[in-house]
Amino acid sequence: MKKIEICLSPELIHLHDLKGKIVVVVDIFRATSTMVTGLANAVQSITPVAGLETCRAMKKEGYIIAGERNGQTAEGFELGNSPLSYLKKAYEGKKIAVTTTNGTLAIELSKKDADEVILGAFLNLQATADYLVQKNKDVVIHCAGWKGMFNLEDSLYAGALVKRLAGHFTFDCDGAIAMKSLFEQHQNNLQGFLNQASHAKRLQNHNIEADIDFCLTMDKYDLVGKLQGEALIKVNPQKETT
Amino acid sequence: MKKIEICLSPELIHLHDLKGKIVVVVDIFRATSTMVTGLANAVQSITPVAGLETCRAMKKEGYIIAGERNGQTAEGFELGNSPLSYLKKAYEGKKIAVTTTNGTLAIELSKKDADEVILGAFLNLQATADYLVQKNKDVVIHCAGWKGMFNLEDSLYAGALVKRLAGHFTFDCDGAIAMKSLFEQHQNNLQGFLNQASHAKRLQNHNIEADIDFCLTMDKYDLVGKLQGEALIKVNPQKETT
Repeated sequence: MKKIEICLSPELIHLHDLKGKIVVVVDIFRATSTMVTGLANAVQSITPVAGLETCRAMKKEGYIIAGERNGQTAEGFELGNSPLSYLKKAYEGKKIAVTTTNGTLAIELSKKDADEVILGAFLNLQATADYLVQKNKDVVIHCAGWKGMFNLEDSLYAGALVKRLAGHFTFDCDGAIAMKSLFEQHQNNLQGFLNQASHAKRLQNHNIEADIDFCLTMDKYDLVGKLQGEALIKVNPQKETT
Repeated sequence: MKKIEICLSPELIHLHDLKGKIVVVVDIFRATSTMVTGLANAVQSITPVAGLETCRAMKKEGYIIAGERNGQTAEGFELGNSPLSYLKKAYEGKKIAVTTTNGTLAIELSKKDADEVILGAFLNLQATADYLVQKNKDVVIHCAGWKGMFNLEDSLYAGALVKRLAGHFTFDCDGAIAMKSLFEQHQNNLQGFLNQASHAKRLQNHNIEADIDFCLTMDKYDLVGKLQGEALIKVNPQKETT
């Protein structure tokens, strides 16, 4: 059986050998949830870029630019980081360039060595689990964290994915054991548990209650978001052949 | 109220500002449990050193040398890393020099900036909690981890200490929220939960079942182990004045 590992922060990713593995990058509030929502709402592609300036420059190349810093839409950007902006196919067919605080970094650090990088979100949890079972490669769940530190919501997602994959994969990793157990304990009241999250984080997330509700919705979308070259695109797990 | 933070790995300690704070270093299997046991059994002091060779050289200076690599007593060393070796005051009055895989590193990385470095172990959990309440400074619980990664038993200890300190301290840290919850879920069967720990770690811990039982004993000793200069010494929390 193939293995699952959890990496709890981008600051720890160098401890994991990513070669031959699929890396699931997760930044629940809100980068990867927003990317999955965009792809489910027919955007053509989403290109994550590291800096605000690089992202801004892509506007001239026909990209819709999306960016936030500390939870706010960055100056001169059309979009911030709310998944709700993409609903009703608002950006159908468009190419999006996006920069976010934690999520972009985690993607960047994963793509060099991994076989594949895909997006993790509660919104497409089962589709992602099905895809990983079908691919049958070792998996690393890479939590984007919060400024390099352990992050509650990303870690709970990691636990949820381990739970869905148990039986198909082994998990020989203390992080996976801990986060699966933590998710099982709180799965019926994720929002209540997350309300305890750190004060600094809650301040950052002020006025995004609707986004948070949305990002905690399970299995709304039946697609996988996959990095191809520099851009994330939609993959339908049932149709892709290995 | 003063704050508690958890640092889940020495690889993340640079994200924490340790100035003015007390750092509780924890390596449950077995470095810090063994050190607490030694201090409770009347050793004079325990000096943690980074390398095997440095430690070996201290024999000539009159130290009893203790060292393990990958769970085994290192060649030419009198002691390995078993807490049981120190029982019945077997090394009463002796100065011990010790090197271990993860614990020594965590102490080394903590001592530069912290106000104080003390030892964390289930064996003296309440004494340590009482000491921290008495001192009334911000606290960072520094988990030694396993080869830089998240470690189940050290994290559970961190959760246990947060639980004992709740009401006296605030914890504005996702790691603290998560580990307190995980400890609460498994506090009545720590050993059963820890039996799920990673296969590689279990192999490393082979033939140390008696040590593991001992290290999971709660509140056996009423003392605090504190770094003073280069050596860990025993402090009686009731008698020290601030």
